[in-house]
Amino acid sequence: MASNPYLVGLVGQGVGPSLTPALHMAEGRAHGLDYLYRTIDLNVIGVAPERIGEILEWARALGYDALNVTHPCKQLVIPHLDDLDDAAAALGAVNTVIFGADKTVGYNTDAPGFATGFAEGLPGADVANVVLLGAGGAGAAVGHALLDLGVEHLAVVDLDVDRAAVLAHDLAGRHPNARVDASAFDKLSVLLPGSDGIVHCTPTGMADHPGIPFDAALLHPGLWVADIVYRPLNTALLAAARTAGCRTLDGGHMAVHQATTAFELITGITPDADRMSRHFRTLAG
Amino acid sequence: MASNPYLVGLVGQGVGPSLTPALHMAEGRAHGLDYLYRTIDLNVIGVAPERIGEILEWARALGYDALNVTHPCKQLVIPHLDDLDDAAAALGAVNTVIFGADKTVGYNTDAPGFATGFAEGLPGADVANVVLLGAGGAGAAVGHALLDLGVEHLAVVDLDVDRAAVLAHDLAGRHPNARVDASAFDKLSVLLPGSDGIVHCTPTGMADHPGIPFDAALLHPGLWVADIVYRPLNTALLAAARTAGCRTLDGGHMAVHQATTAFELITGITPDADRMSRHFRTLAG
Repeated sequence: MASNPYLVGLVGQGVGPSLTPALHMAEGRAHGLDYLYRTIDLNVIGVAPERIGEILEWARALGYDALNVTHPCKQLVIPHLDDLDDAAAALGAVNTVIFGADKTVGYNTDAPGFATGFAEGLPGADVANVVLLGAGGAGAAVGHALLDLGVEHLAVVDLDVDRAAVLAHDLAGRHPNARVDASAFDKLSVLLPGSDGIVHCTPTGMADHPGIPFDAALLHPGLWVADIVYRPLNTALLAAARTAGCRTLDGGHMAVHQATTAFELITGITPDADRMSRHFRTLAG
Repeated sequence: MASNPYLVGLVGQGVGPSLTPALHMAEGRAHGLDYLYRTIDLNVIGVAPERIGEILEWARALGYDALNVTHPCKQLVIPHLDDLDDAAAALGAVNTVIFGADKTVGYNTDAPGFATGFAEGLPGADVANVVLLGAGGAGAAVGHALLDLGVEHLAVVDLDVDRAAVLAHDLAGRHPNARVDASAFDKLSVLLPGSDGIVHCTPTGMADHPGIPFDAALLHPGLWVADIVYRPLNTALLAAARTAGCRTLDGGHMAVHQATTAFELITGITPDADRMSRHFRTLAG
């Protein structure tokens, strides 16, 4: 066993059922590390998300090496950090905090996690014209990743058109060679016939938000369909997409690769992504 | 590996070099537990000992199962606990805090740790007349343990006679069948010739307080000599006592058994005390 045990936590609301602790700990163990990963559920401990600065101070003082940060603290945490990586700065959202010797640095592993998962699960997929459905925090991370992957035209769609417009504007500013625009939800019927793929980034299809996010009649065999929902892995959208002959990518890929990226940031050790993926699918199945 | 990883800390000033984390973690590992033990050095994190209440609150919130507590927080922690065990209540000092589901309970494993170590290392030793040298917190724990072990006459000696008198009074009140009195330091020459044993409970002999706590000419073969200093294990006092033909007990016994008792309180698992002792002596050697 290594002489340097790791202590890591996941801070957010409702994080109790997260699979991330088991995923990290099993991978740590496989590398011979003492690796303890705790959930810190703000609802359970009765601490307001606005106190994330205090949580960081005490986590550092009490021996934590790193925290993963999730809803509703991904933005709130930023003023309490000494530095941000490029992805976190671009997204204005942090999901990983590393307590270094001198400073506390925020990272975002959602965007690289999506990119790696996409390359893994949809190799060779065309990315000229892509629809991004959902302009929240996850949509922002995925949008950045898609443009980094070479998407030429990204249509940002959200029931809240203003939110779609804000994200499209931001993405366009950071990716000047791409065309990024916002569309109303009812334009999906116009967009999808000419698109190579769609990434679904809303909560619809999660165990507690069952349903399909748009009319399955719009699916066609020339469209790949990626879902970032991973509980369940087989969402109603992906089931309908497979029936329609689409290539699909489930949310497990992004979930695993945000974790593999975080694990490497925390330990400096490149994890075995296939092993983490197999473990994740066992846990999620 | 167990599904329930343990997270434990040692809070105090200057706890960085403590052997306790390694001792607990190795024993946890031997039982197949994920067991992480952190030092929380108040000097390093820049938190005043008077903020021990906040430390407890945050340690609980951030997923700690238990804390060991040492100088200067053993008394300060008491107002922040929901309940105390008998030893902690009698001593007014806590060295182990367990975060239960409903309440936070303080224990003192120093007194039972000394008693177990004494039975292990000096089996059959006469305990009719014993001198306790040093009336601080450690002396109080050892004094209670000695009276529980059946000491009939306990002489409490301290350079600070008032401190000796306070402790003697307290011990006498709790052990009405024993004779407990306070003596001035210069009475050792009168006390030791007729005593069965002496327990040394001052810092003299520690690596950073070298020396021998009293005149070695007072040692005689009919006296057993116990030291609670354990860094180093072989103190100048014990070396002199062995030369004088005394049976001796080094401080490792108490150090190990306060830890075995704490380990069992934390995990509910009886540790292998011999294994912990061997490990301790390897670490301390």
